[in-house]
Amino acid sequence: MSNLYCGVDIGGTKCSIALINEKGKILDKIYTCAHVDKDEESIIQMLVGNIREIISRNQLKESGLPGIGIGCAGHIRFRDGVIITTSNLKGFKNYPLREKFQSHFDIPVIVDNDTNAQALGEYKFGAGKGFDDMVFVTVSTGIGAGIIINKQLYRGTTGTAGEFGHSIVEPGSELTCTCGNRGCLMAHACGLALPHLFEKKLKEGKKSTLNLPPNFIMSRMSGQVLKQGLDMGDPVSTEVIAESGYYVGVGLYNLFQILNPPLIVLGGGLTNWGDFYLNKIKSTFFDLARDMVYDPIEITISEIVGDAGVIGAAALTLD
Amino acid sequence: MSNLYCGVDIGGTKCSIALINEKGKILDKIYTCAHVDKDEESIIQMLVGNIREIISRNQLKESGLPGIGIGCAGHIRFRDGVIITTSNLKGFKNYPLREKFQSHFDIPVIVDNDTNAQALGEYKFGAGKGFDDMVFVTVSTGIGAGIIINKQLYRGTTGTAGEFGHSIVEPGSELTCTCGNRGCLMAHACGLALPHLFEKKLKEGKKSTLNLPPNFIMSRMSGQVLKQGLDMGDPVSTEVIAESGYYVGVGLYNLFQILNPPLIVLGGGLTNWGDFYLNKIKSTFFDLARDMVYDPIEITISEIVGDAGVIGAAALTLD
Repeated sequence: MSNLYCGVDIGGTKCSIALINEKGKILDKIYTCAHVDKDEESIIQMLVGNIREIISRNQLKESGLPGIGIGCAGHIRFRDGVIITTSNLKGFKNYPLREKFQSHFDIPVIVDNDTNAQALGEYKFGAGKGFDDMVFVTVSTGIGAGIIINKQLYRGTTGTAGEFGHSIVEPGSELTCTCGNRGCLMAHACGLALPHLFEKKLKEGKKSTLNLPPNFIMSRMSGQVLKQGLDMGDPVSTEVIAESGYYVGVGLYNLFQILNPPLIVLGGGLTNWGDFYLNKIKSTFFDLARDMVYDPIEITISEIVGDAGVIGAAALTLD
Repeated sequence: MSNLYCGVDIGGTKCSIALINEKGKILDKIYTCAHVDKDEESIIQMLVGNIREIISRNQLKESGLPGIGIGCAGHIRFRDGVIITTSNLKGFKNYPLREKFQSHFDIPVIVDNDTNAQALGEYKFGAGKGFDDMVFVTVSTGIGAGIIINKQLYRGTTGTAGEFGHSIVEPGSELTCTCGNRGCLMAHACGLALPHLFEKKLKEGKKSTLNLPPNFIMSRMSGQVLKQGLDMGDPVSTEVIAESGYYVGVGLYNLFQILNPPLIVLGGGLTNWGDFYLNKIKSTFFDLARDMVYDPIEITISEIVGDAGVIGAAALTLD
């Protein structure tokens, strides 16, 4: 064995294939967007080629790796590595991803949800080091969680445990989630919700000082644009970010009451909103939790930045 | 060893001490309400006496039991068996219950939250037999959960995991929970909430056909009274029960998204509302979960009735 680990992160706009060492450091990486317009079989072929390339160009043999870990967004049935649904990629409905990859390799292929993989990466190499239990929460285009219990990922019966973004925090809400329900945490706080949240504030009569171009398409309202707004003091951007933080805080509080973890780690793009956002999340959490916190609970930002997905995917092969 | 197990269930109005066999069947039980007006030390003395009595009158020796399991409502710090707070008993704040009992016995004393104990009982002897993971939810005066993961109780860092009744399902609610927050599941669905829910319906102009006596004190509105109302077709009672069922359904759905368990078992007094209530819970759950359920999830009623508390307490000593 080489003490190296191979991970594949399959995302909607980019794929990464990397080799990491036992400290979670990336030694080599292939980054590609070439899969976007390909069909399922062609994507598999391309990624298998990339895996073989990264193995060979590092003077490794397949048998020198404990396995290949693959993280993919969506509902993944862990026991057989089938993608049940994914909104990130065209096709791939009830698609036997593990079986397809496995047919090309003699070492085990492990397929898991990308957030689970990130949680494991965070637990092995990041803020979770030394803890037995933790929850990793990503606040990004969507919202999801990965739950570590007793030093292991807890995946539930299908593998969809941690689909925390679909927990309902406002049953009477007018905001609809991608799942079709109203009032999911995701409908109130994630990247996909930002255009709706911004429009809602404008409809309430709030005035934005963001000089959006006249042809600005509201569906493109993003975390980056709002970050600019926050930095320049735009009241609407600030309120949207605060509202997202409030709902994430409520969600973390609910996780606390259910799981009583010693650590919650936040990752995902919206954490780039920085201290203002994190403070809103934490103040909401501690205002609710008050005197019901008897042992320290740490709420912190991911220590693995940038390549958390592919590092987590590789971490799937560690045990 | 005798293959017998000793449990103590300390409740606000009654205490039970029982011996059960390896199938969870009660062989002998002492039931008492004599603790209600006693102070902490006197309650301990009385219960220690009861335990000694049940041991001796069954021709057992203390050393023939693996331990003594004690279930108690409230926030229990599992690692040292301290009652942090309990609303059921006077006093007992930061009270070292395990230490106090342990000083009287040579076999291990285990103290846990009563809902955790019930969850374990249900897992060992009831609807949970044969499952590796399950969630037990009690809907009673309050609402709580006990979580079995990988064949063990998951207690969290303090021991307060499963305090699911305090998860927030209506952040903007005018209904306040005993914890002081608004919009907790408990504020919308448990026994304590019934007077508020009933009054809310009356204020909305609904007419009750329950012939409540003119001097009826609304704070005494109970599950039993509402059950009469349901059976006789009172629209207000029916709506209150349906509303409780709706919120419990939302809560179970949130648990499903977070934990993806194969089984949820419902216990507690309000399940006596019967099929109408269970069907409302289930229909709310499955309307929300729809096509996100990929493996069967069973939602069922506790198979351990009546003495679930003391059977669960004894089950704490099984492993």
